[in-house]
Amino acid sequence: MTIHKDSAHQGSTAAGSAKPEEKTPVMKDVPIGLDASGLRTEFDSMGDVEVPADRYWGAQTQRSLQHFSIGNDHMPKEVYHAYGYVKKAAALVNQAAGRLPEWKAAPIIRAAEETIAGKLDDHFPLYVWQTGSGTQSNMNVNEVLSNRAIQLLGGTLGTQQPVGPNDDVNMGQSSNDTFPTAMHIAAILEIDERLLPRVTELADELERKAIQWMDVVKIGRTHLEDAVPLTVGQEWSGWAAQIRSCIAEIEHSREGLLKLAAGGTAVGTGLNAPEGFSTEIALTIAELTGKEFVTAPNKFEAQGSLDAIVRAHAGLRSLAVALMKIANDMRWLASGPRTGFAELILPSNEPGSSIMPGKVNPTQCEAMVMISIQVLGDDSGVAFAGSQGNFELNAMRPIIINNFLHSARILGDGIEKFLTYSVKGTKLNEKKIASSVGESLMLVTALSPVIGYQNSAHIAEAALANDQTLRDAAIASGKVTAEQFDKIVVPDALVGHGVEGA
Amino acid sequence: MTIHKDSAHQGSTAAGSAKPEEKTPVMKDVPIGLDASGLRTEFDSMGDVEVPADRYWGAQTQRSLQHFSIGNDHMPKEVYHAYGYVKKAAALVNQAAGRLPEWKAAPIIRAAEETIAGKLDDHFPLYVWQTGSGTQSNMNVNEVLSNRAIQLLGGTLGTQQPVGPNDDVNMGQSSNDTFPTAMHIAAILEIDERLLPRVTELADELERKAIQWMDVVKIGRTHLEDAVPLTVGQEWSGWAAQIRSCIAEIEHSREGLLKLAAGGTAVGTGLNAPEGFSTEIALTIAELTGKEFVTAPNKFEAQGSLDAIVRAHAGLRSLAVALMKIANDMRWLASGPRTGFAELILPSNEPGSSIMPGKVNPTQCEAMVMISIQVLGDDSGVAFAGSQGNFELNAMRPIIINNFLHSARILGDGIEKFLTYSVKGTKLNEKKIASSVGESLMLVTALSPVIGYQNSAHIAEAALANDQTLRDAAIASGKVTAEQFDKIVVPDALVGHGVEGA
Amino acid sequence: MTIHKDSAHQGSTAAGSAKPEEKTPVMKDVPIGLDASGLRTEFDSMGDVEVPADRYWGAQTQRSLQHFSIGNDHMPKEVYHAYGYVKKAAALVNQAAGRLPEWKAAPIIRAAEETIAGKLDDHFPLYVWQTGSGTQSNMNVNEVLSNRAIQLLGGTLGTQQPVGPNDDVNMGQSSNDTFPTAMHIAAILEIDERLLPRVTELADELERKAIQWMDVVKIGRTHLEDAVPLTVGQEWSGWAAQIRSCIAEIEHSREGLLKLAAGGTAVGTGLNAPEGFSTEIALTIAELTGKEFVTAPNKFEAQGSLDAIVRAHAGLRSLAVALMKIANDMRWLASGPRTGFAELILPSNEPGSSIMPGKVNPTQCEAMVMISIQVLGDDSGVAFAGSQGNFELNAMRPIIINNFLHSARILGDGIEKFLTYSVKGTKLNEKKIASSVGESLMLVTALSPVIGYQNSAHIAEAALANDQTLRDAAIASGKVTAEQFDKIVVPDALVGHGVEGA
Amino acid sequence: MTIHKDSAHQGSTAAGSAKPEEKTPVMKDVPIGLDASGLRTEFDSMGDVEVPADRYWGAQTQRSLQHFSIGNDHMPKEVYHAYGYVKKAAALVNQAAGRLPEWKAAPIIRAAEETIAGKLDDHFPLYVWQTGSGTQSNMNVNEVLSNRAIQLLGGTLGTQQPVGPNDDVNMGQSSNDTFPTAMHIAAILEIDERLLPRVTELADELERKAIQWMDVVKIGRTHLEDAVPLTVGQEWSGWAAQIRSCIAEIEHSREGLLKLAAGGTAVGTGLNAPEGFSTEIALTIAELTGKEFVTAPNKFEAQGSLDAIVRAHAGLRSLAVALMKIANDMRWLASGPRTGFAELILPSNEPGSSIMPGKVNPTQCEAMVMISIQVLGDDSGVAFAGSQGNFELNAMRPIIINNFLHSARILGDGIEKFLTYSVKGTKLNEKKIASSVGESLMLVTALSPVIGYQNSAHIAEAALANDQTLRDAAIASGKVTAEQFDKIVVPDALVGHGVEGA
Repeated sequence: MTIHKDSAHQGSTAAGSAKPEEKTPVMKDVPIGLDASGLRTEFDSMGDVEVPADRYWGAQTQRSLQHFSIGNDHMPKEVYHAYGYVKKAAALVNQAAGRLPEWKAAPIIRAAEETIAGKLDDHFPLYVWQTGSGTQSNMNVNEVLSNRAIQLLGGTLGTQQPVGPNDDVNMGQSSNDTFPTAMHIAAILEIDERLLPRVTELADELERKAIQWMDVVKIGRTHLEDAVPLTVGQEWSGWAAQIRSCIAEIEHSREGLLKLAAGGTAVGTGLNAPEGFSTEIALTIAELTGKEFVTAPNKFEAQGSLDAIVRAHAGLRSLAVALMKIANDMRWLASGPRTGFAELILPSNEPGSSIMPGKVNPTQCEAMVMISIQVLGDDSGVAFAGSQGNFELNAMRPIIINNFLHSARILGDGIEKFLTYSVKGTKLNEKKIASSVGESLMLVTALSPVIGYQNSAHIAEAALANDQTLRDAAIASGKVTAEQFDKIVVPDALVGHGVEGA
Repeated sequence: MTIHKDSAHQGSTAAGSAKPEEKTPVMKDVPIGLDASGLRTEFDSMGDVEVPADRYWGAQTQRSLQHFSIGNDHMPKEVYHAYGYVKKAAALVNQAAGRLPEWKAAPIIRAAEETIAGKLDDHFPLYVWQTGSGTQSNMNVNEVLSNRAIQLLGGTLGTQQPVGPNDDVNMGQSSNDTFPTAMHIAAILEIDERLLPRVTELADELERKAIQWMDVVKIGRTHLEDAVPLTVGQEWSGWAAQIRSCIAEIEHSREGLLKLAAGGTAVGTGLNAPEGFSTEIALTIAELTGKEFVTAPNKFEAQGSLDAIVRAHAGLRSLAVALMKIANDMRWLASGPRTGFAELILPSNEPGSSIMPGKVNPTQCEAMVMISIQVLGDDSGVAFAGSQGNFELNAMRPIIINNFLHSARILGDGIEKFLTYSVKGTKLNEKKIASSVGESLMLVTALSPVIGYQNSAHIAEAALANDQTLRDAAIASGKVTAEQFDKIVVPDALVGHGVEGA
Repeated sequence: MTIHKDSAHQGSTAAGSAKPEEKTPVMKDVPIGLDASGLRTEFDSMGDVEVPADRYWGAQTQRSLQHFSIGNDHMPKEVYHAYGYVKKAAALVNQAAGRLPEWKAAPIIRAAEETIAGKLDDHFPLYVWQTGSGTQSNMNVNEVLSNRAIQLLGGTLGTQQPVGPNDDVNMGQSSNDTFPTAMHIAAILEIDERLLPRVTELADELERKAIQWMDVVKIGRTHLEDAVPLTVGQEWSGWAAQIRSCIAEIEHSREGLLKLAAGGTAVGTGLNAPEGFSTEIALTIAELTGKEFVTAPNKFEAQGSLDAIVRAHAGLRSLAVALMKIANDMRWLASGPRTGFAELILPSNEPGSSIMPGKVNPTQCEAMVMISIQVLGDDSGVAFAGSQGNFELNAMRPIIINNFLHSARILGDGIEKFLTYSVKGTKLNEKKIASSVGESLMLVTALSPVIGYQNSAHIAEAALANDQTLRDAAIASGKVTAEQFDKIVVPDALVGHGVEGA
Repeated sequence: MTIHKDSAHQGSTAAGSAKPEEKTPVMKDVPIGLDASGLRTEFDSMGDVEVPADRYWGAQTQRSLQHFSIGNDHMPKEVYHAYGYVKKAAALVNQAAGRLPEWKAAPIIRAAEETIAGKLDDHFPLYVWQTGSGTQSNMNVNEVLSNRAIQLLGGTLGTQQPVGPNDDVNMGQSSNDTFPTAMHIAAILEIDERLLPRVTELADELERKAIQWMDVVKIGRTHLEDAVPLTVGQEWSGWAAQIRSCIAEIEHSREGLLKLAAGGTAVGTGLNAPEGFSTEIALTIAELTGKEFVTAPNKFEAQGSLDAIVRAHAGLRSLAVALMKIANDMRWLASGPRTGFAELILPSNEPGSSIMPGKVNPTQCEAMVMISIQVLGDDSGVAFAGSQGNFELNAMRPIIINNFLHSARILGDGIEKFLTYSVKGTKLNEKKIASSVGESLMLVTALSPVIGYQNSAHIAEAALANDQTLRDAAIASGKVTAEQFDKIVVPDALVGHGVEGA
């Protein structure tokens, strides 16, 4: 690696953009791809770097690859797709303001669109564990868009001419403001396009089943112990209500993500971005994505903290907490088939055991439980990282966006599988449900308002001790006649006031 | 312990309340207190138990004390105060409906009011680590109110006559619905009466200081490294904005706590509570507390999950995450006094070292950082516990309400101390602030739009390598004249567009 | 508060200790207690402070009370008891080396012994949320011992004469080295005196029950689903083995706590402590406590990090993880009594429900589960705090020792209750256990080596589909005769090779 | 998907292996690879499934792919490589015992060796989020080895003849015992082959630098504030000691991983495995891997819990906690270059900012901090999952092994980069270090034993208030002469007793 002491490479200077080119380059419709092999020389302020000749990236991407190839965690592609919107919007705003000539803006915009569409994914190879500001991924985007623009304009890759990564693609921007902007865009798109539709489908299905089974009386259980009855539909309505509440929470928590840091540049003051830039770029991103993005009202908060996305991850966690309860309930209620609760029959999707023939297990529930735990672990990392900002930057961005997109993704996909392969096909073991209702001693609760709590307790205790039915024990107690018992202790009459409970 | 095989103790039976008393007892104005020593015999359905004669509690409280004296974690008093509202509201609703005669309701209500006022605190001795439903604390309240009511009516303690803990005080209720109701009331009161006012004071003070110091230019820092300048006021405005966002989040998350489970009774169906009870008791609690409580729309969710309070704790966590960043920034900016950043001068509240004379440390910041970490730890326990519900009950209530009130309390108190003894008295070391601005090489950023990024980088690198000022290095580079430099690189002109950044 | 510009208060100076007193004060046997009311004036380097006249503490304790009364979390008394050992050992070492005259050492030692015995507990009022080094608690000890020594010598409280808190009680020490020393002593004593004996009792009882029930064949369950049989004793042997492994882990992790920072003073270099001091004080503490304490080989590690206690807390967490599994297994196996697994009958310690008469719940298991979750939450706070050290000090000590002692304490107490009130009294429902074994279809596994996995699977599937016994389905399949079936499928023969499994 | 009601597919039955084949198939040296396209029909007990014709996997792998394609988290390849050892060892043991004919064992062993070598990686496509026992990955291995063996023997893929996945490859095994066995093998190999060597290199380098800089006196800092001096080497020796302690901890925690569940089969009893199998397979795995594996003494613990690997992850966490402190110290000490502590000069690996020319950031430290946080998040998920076992199985295995290998991997790789690109090239800014020592007021501590703590404190306070040097303030105080001061306050003499502190 050679440092150019003599500054042979100048980059594209402001002089360059101020002084009109003798002949304006014209964009041609060159398809994506570099028909080259071996290495190409790129440079940055520290000197020259060799990069693979068939890749668009430049010197800083290559340096990052060398210094940060850690594990298998790559910066999620969604971040780059989101960055495509940022770069396109910046180019549009800069062009409209006359800072960026149209002939430069056009190829940048085209390259940005290709980025959004995922067509340049192979050119974004960096890892999660890199600089905490995300600068290396921003520079990766700048370098790829610069070289792609140069290609479209017929220039020479590696010259940073006529479109430079810092001066043109990154114009009016810093990693410090654009990386959190891309984080928010990526998070919103994941929530809106993938997660929420699936969660909503799950809630819909839970409600359908709640209605379908609203009149099937079953034994309730508290502390894992037999309790008074409710209906299967009521139980499912509780699960549905949990999920609906989580949807509302996620919808709330996404609002904080609509505020964008773009325009704050290096430390939030907006140095090197023209006045109004922040508002215009947010507006443009909103138009491009169809989402209600606005500029963050305070850029020092928006860049010095990552509080909004920490809060948004708490929204995901809320869903994980609810899903864990539901998935656990389902697998316990399906336990058996002969010696467990055995009220639910889950679909048999695959042989369950390599050694026990014919065994079927609640595997979708188990996957959902593990996903929920992972989301809680991710969440704890996110909150920790969120607390570790210093001064004008929280340099824990890559871990947070990686965990956020990971959590949202496995929740979304996991829900789809759970819904498709387990919830939808779940059936009732009505025979077992009915027999359990009849056996429960806790129906004695219905007697309590009539003969008092203590008398009722003694009846239940006697039934258990003597292995009697509740009816027999009640009559034997002398506190109630057979007629009274049969009139009062009617499971179907004890399940309350409709779908949502009392 | 003797089991009453012959059911000598009957409790107050429905027969009792159906059959009109020959002579209605009259409540007398007996002051709180039991002038007795030694032991008194109480009973429950399992038999007799001796309790301290100077305490109002009964058999089940005593059993819990025996079985669960674990550590020093007592169920927070706030839970009992909140339970006072529940019991008062239940008595009012039951009386209005004619289920509970006025002469019974009156002493229950008076005892409940005494509970709310904290006058019976000594009679609620139980531990956090008990039954997961909180039944033992509910029964503690039922027993204390029963005996206090008996005392007020001139009866004999331990007879459960004429006011019984289960049949009268607990009428229409279960622990399963009232304990989460008390949790929500206690949480709302802690948030509204103690936490939010203090957080708001902190935000106010941060904003005052932001305005006061809006024109003091200082060096910005990203990645802990010198960056471009901003003003002290801008930096503080970012902290203020963080806290304001947390206030909004807490205000959102408290909304879920306004939904009350009361009326769902044992499993959410409302068995043994009359129709309409849930709506009426929520309304009554709202009136008594002045808070916007309503009945939870789905009782199976409200009792089978604790999702609402898990979400509310995430609101507290959000505040902890922000406070940790702010407290850390303050102590780093105050580091020194001679060899650190030394921009802030925190109040000297106490000698800092037992061995180093004259040392002063950022102790309020340290306490705030530790509190923030504790809140994150509490939060992780709350989310875990929130996921562990089964069927019609989440039996992890005591740990969750204890952690919630703990987090809210140490945040509230910690903020008060932090504000009073550190933030308010913080001063600027303007001499140091000014000298640091001048030294920073990152002012070169202002040259970037004029001479390009790469040229600017080489100037900064040369200044550092040669231990030059930026100005000297810039002029030496030949890329800019002294006049140009002095016109462009003016720190005061680089701090952007007002209080909130770009 | 007045600052003594003229240094009217001198503290006890080296001049004082160098120049022999004209008349050596003599210690008298004054009982603990200050017969005074109102306020007393104390001072420190910042000036005068009024303190309650009936307390031994001085100016810095009072300042801390004013600045840090946050929540209800008080520094655990165990820390002060441990500090008693530190101060006694320091006095002994300083006296032996001739730095501290015997007439000063004697009252300090006596006061330290009173501290160890808990007799001065009322004089240690500080909160957890204070300076991160624990200096305020160290100064609290220094001040109390100084004033108690002054009292014993007939001096005047508040004069710091003839025994000063910094120069005499704290001689050769800093908070930076003594606070972690006290942390380690307190942690070791809690582990050795309270926690480990109780965990060992639990393991013993689990093993007793494992042996007792070694021949009771029961259905195994994997994925919550019926599996092949094992014996009740084998199942309990697994729990016992888990606990034994945790004991070994805790014994390992306590070893790191045996290394003491004392002697490192302010930053680890031992400034102001004589050569050899660190070794001697560790040796003396070892003698006083009967524990194998040694001086930490590297004081910069011992004071700059809290890694040893973070690791020790992971040992506690390991126990929590195991206990949660065991307590959960027990409550699920006891679920019912009519509609659950109902294999275990847990002791009925208290009525379980305020509304459902006769209900009994697995409350000890629930408490143990909540305790386990709390320990995991505490652990997550400890690890976070452990990572937040800077330079020569980890200033997160109070939160860590508080969480450590909290976790150890609730584990120890919780285990005692769980063992006494649940494990010991647990009985088998042998009727249910036997009937479940017979019903399981997974006994088909025994056929697999003979007729192949796929044939066996089809038999099990047929039995379930047709609601047949396994035997009927097997014979109907034609793959096995009745004789073969009866010879191969013998539950008692399928439970393997003794107590510890295969 | 067709269910074979008539059991046309029989699998390889015991009859099959009992009845000698007319002609024993002979293994040929067929290279890896399937020259086919389109789909191939495979079957399991539930019926036929189409799989890609160019893959070795069978029906159950394909079912899992359909049901569990969730996110991008694939079961780590290391698990399959470890499984190769399990299957090879099982075949060897079964062959030696005469249960598996040599002509079947040989191709299984060869396929297992190919698995170990990673040559079959493309045939293990499953996801982490699957059945909690890992059965699907075990079956994936069974199916691939079965088909590869069939190929080597000249048979027809999809027939399960003459080598069946369940009856032959899985002989004497269950997922329940082999998956945790593979987990332990994979974890040990990752620790031994990748992690520990790198951690050791880091400790070595830290020690080298500690020795190199043992005499460079620098200012110490506690609470971020100036304190008494130590040497740069002493500071680094503390970091080195932290890492050495972590190595010891990891070496301890790996011991639990040496105990293997293999032989416990379905529920720990060893059903369908011959007596002695567990000991022999552990011995064989030990020989094959060169690691000290033994059979777990209690299989119910080994399969019902995952405690050993939870403890091992705590070992990894211990390292993360230490690394976070060290990386944070390094980046703070390198802060500047002009306005921070600026004592260390970290290598400049890449341009730090897209907008601020010439900026260099402590990116390796930031990556290490993020990795540490991620490991803490992973750890919290592991402990949670570890607590969620039920009865004879902890069905949270995939999440735990995935998190374990993830943590170990990013720690190992991260340390390599941190060491290579940051620690090794770190230099001292000796000029700044020296000037800071001279400025510190805390050198006053050296006067404390001579003139007393309070006098010393007043000198330091005066120096700060009057902006004096400590020497000037000391002499002005009249408590010490210039000669005394110059004799006592000698930084080089205050740094203690050698490399490891006091």
